[in-house]
Amino acid sequence: MDGELISVGTEILLGNITNTNTAFLSEMCARLGINLYYHTVVGDNEERLKETLKRACGRSQVVLVTGGLGPTEDDITKETAAVVLGCKLVEDVHTKKRIEAFFKKHSKFQDGKKIPENNWKQAMVPKGAKVIDNQNGTAPGLILEEDGTVLILLPGPPNEMKPMFEESVYPYLHKNQPEIIYSQMVKICGIGESQVEEKIKDLLRKQKNPTIAPYAKTGEVHLRITAKAKDEKEAKKMCKPIVRELKGRFGKNIYTTEENKTLEEAVVELLASQNLTLATAESCTGGMLAARIVNVPGASRILKEGFVTYSDRAKRKRLLVKKGTLAREGAVSGKTAKEMAKGGCFVSGADVCISITGIAGPDGGSKEKPVGTVFMACCYQGEVNIKEFHFSGSRSKIRECTTVSALVLLRDTLLQNFKKK
Amino acid sequence: MDGELISVGTEILLGNITNTNTAFLSEMCARLGINLYYHTVVGDNEERLKETLKRACGRSQVVLVTGGLGPTEDDITKETAAVVLGCKLVEDVHTKKRIEAFFKKHSKFQDGKKIPENNWKQAMVPKGAKVIDNQNGTAPGLILEEDGTVLILLPGPPNEMKPMFEESVYPYLHKNQPEIIYSQMVKICGIGESQVEEKIKDLLRKQKNPTIAPYAKTGEVHLRITAKAKDEKEAKKMCKPIVRELKGRFGKNIYTTEENKTLEEAVVELLASQNLTLATAESCTGGMLAARIVNVPGASRILKEGFVTYSDRAKRKRLLVKKGTLAREGAVSGKTAKEMAKGGCFVSGADVCISITGIAGPDGGSKEKPVGTVFMACCYQGEVNIKEFHFSGSRSKIRECTTVSALVLLRDTLLQNFKKK
Repeated sequence: MDGELISVGTEILLGNITNTNTAFLSEMCARLGINLYYHTVVGDNEERLKETLKRACGRSQVVLVTGGLGPTEDDITKETAAVVLGCKLVEDVHTKKRIEAFFKKHSKFQDGKKIPENNWKQAMVPKGAKVIDNQNGTAPGLILEEDGTVLILLPGPPNEMKPMFEESVYPYLHKNQPEIIYSQMVKICGIGESQVEEKIKDLLRKQKNPTIAPYAKTGEVHLRITAKAKDEKEAKKMCKPIVRELKGRFGKNIYTTEENKTLEEAVVELLASQNLTLATAESCTGGMLAARIVNVPGASRILKEGFVTYSDRAKRKRLLVKKGTLAREGAVSGKTAKEMAKGGCFVSGADVCISITGIAGPDGGSKEKPVGTVFMACCYQGEVNIKEFHFSGSRSKIRECTTVSALVLLRDTLLQNFKKK
Repeated sequence: MDGELISVGTEILLGNITNTNTAFLSEMCARLGINLYYHTVVGDNEERLKETLKRACGRSQVVLVTGGLGPTEDDITKETAAVVLGCKLVEDVHTKKRIEAFFKKHSKFQDGKKIPENNWKQAMVPKGAKVIDNQNGTAPGLILEEDGTVLILLPGPPNEMKPMFEESVYPYLHKNQPEIIYSQMVKICGIGESQVEEKIKDLLRKQKNPTIAPYAKTGEVHLRITAKAKDEKEAKKMCKPIVRELKGRFGKNIYTTEENKTLEEAVVELLASQNLTLATAESCTGGMLAARIVNVPGASRILKEGFVTYSDRAKRKRLLVKKGTLAREGAVSGKTAKEMAKGGCFVSGADVCISITGIAGPDGGSKEKPVGTVFMACCYQGEVNIKEFHFSGSRSKIRECTTVSALVLLRDTLLQNFKKK
């Protein structure tokens, strides 16, 4: 099947936001075996949107449109699509009820105000459209089938669009695929993108079916193996040897082969499997690591507590870092990281504590310790594993890389110790 | 002037990389007063690229193309553009010399290998094209003027494209630009998108020049006022009355009119302006609030420390929450939030402490306290401001909304108290 993406929104054309929906949808389409030939971004302008939709429906079997479904007057995607397909807009009672419920639920947040009139606009849908409920917002998604083309309209905000795609659109498109597409994820941490690609150059070169697609995330590389076959059993069988090969090449750097498992989930499971509790002690990341851990539902099983000790005083008072250490070695040093981790274990009574101290910039760097210098320590059963990193990029990039590296260090420390047993 | 962007590269269509060039170029065009009407992403396919280039040159005065200028066979942008404009490719001696010099300079990097033959391909340019030198790579940029349309070809890698644009393309386009655009940002927090729209319906309806564009962020709404005029002074003058009008309508919900100031920055400045220190006490957000504060460079001025007290034990031990309170009211209650905030101030010695306790889900909800129930408290000079929220959506969405609402509550508490003085 051939497909294309259309993103609607003048804010994208103005460069106010980076369009992350397309990368997500492209990956999903690759996984579904849909060949994407175009992305188009068009503003909230009826003429240009109409022209773009017409062209897309004329040349592609699947057209995915995001954005322009909001309650405001410049949200015109649905109305324009109805014009292009020549169908009327009718009120969808179910959606009207859902919107009502959505606002009732948020009444406190909305200061008990009545539902703004413009929201009822969102209950109007093109006649004959399949309606997709939106759990995180008011705008419904819409599937329109029109002689040989499927036109799918989704809201622009990623937190609304992504779950709707995964829960409703993906299964719908998967069902309509002539060939079975099976894909298997291999998630790698602890080595860089170029090293990963170097290690599998040969596999990438000779790939046909199954294919291997590398996706670089911050501090991680995900490899998606996708096979096309007449049935799932066949397709699975085609992926197996490649997954085995990759496991051979990347060993313990592979933290999961499960589609939706995150690195923090893998780490939490590792801790839970040994009934170990965790404490975090963060300086420059200021809580990002703890927040990643708490991303995992039920993290309370393993997370005793987190310390955000951004100031020297807090490092001393909360984590018992020695005044002398801070004076001699500085707050950003291996010694300080070590004492933070040891102190974190002692104070919280957690089995494991991971500490972070670094210079995220843009200021605070020096010749010996430039911006991007980060020390981490992981304390487990009295032993402390210390690491030094040198990241580059913006303050937020450095803090993101630091957070992922801390999860990797924590994972490595646990794996090493489990081996010893 | 009307313009559009074309990104060439199958890797973008596959979702292997997020296209960041377009956001950069869009912003640049907005600043230049070029009205961008389309972005198109197309693969390294001659037919589809030709069709896309033809359409673009037919409808836009400025066409910016990135990608597909590399040395490999599937880099066909330049060749295809030459076909579309009906001009020959000729060797550019200057570029050939530059490429030679580039390889000499990077000989270490190139292991002293001789220059790969395919690189000479990059010295071939369409006859009559303006050549833009590339300081960070081999592919030159190209400016092609063809009856009323300017076609500009730039390399795909951002570290090559951006400096070339800033140093050569921006001045070139600026010179040809009759009018300029000035735009002014107004950032609003504490009220929802549709309510904001309701409040400015009339302004949105009659807008022409300047225009008002609303952008919804999690828990915030940004309004961009954009004016076109013959010079910046004039354009600024046109924006002024609208900004004044918006200030009248949204009052203290406007936290900044600065382009790049974030909500957390505004809050940190508010604290710093009164020499106040802050502590955070987080349960369900698990450090997200502290992390947002630490996003601000130099947050150490005001952030004493952060507590991630996800467990009841930590709430008691670290923040002195009463055992009885947790037993009677539960960890997710106004009383617990209040004691967390008071305890946070007392233990850390901070002037202000904001606390968060809630049920982010997916589990842990009950009939009385469903998933999404969040209590917050802000303690300042012994007085505690308590709020209850009911959010919906995924675990991460609930935690994001919670974090923003906490920043808003903190800001409101400070503003109220400053008024009293």
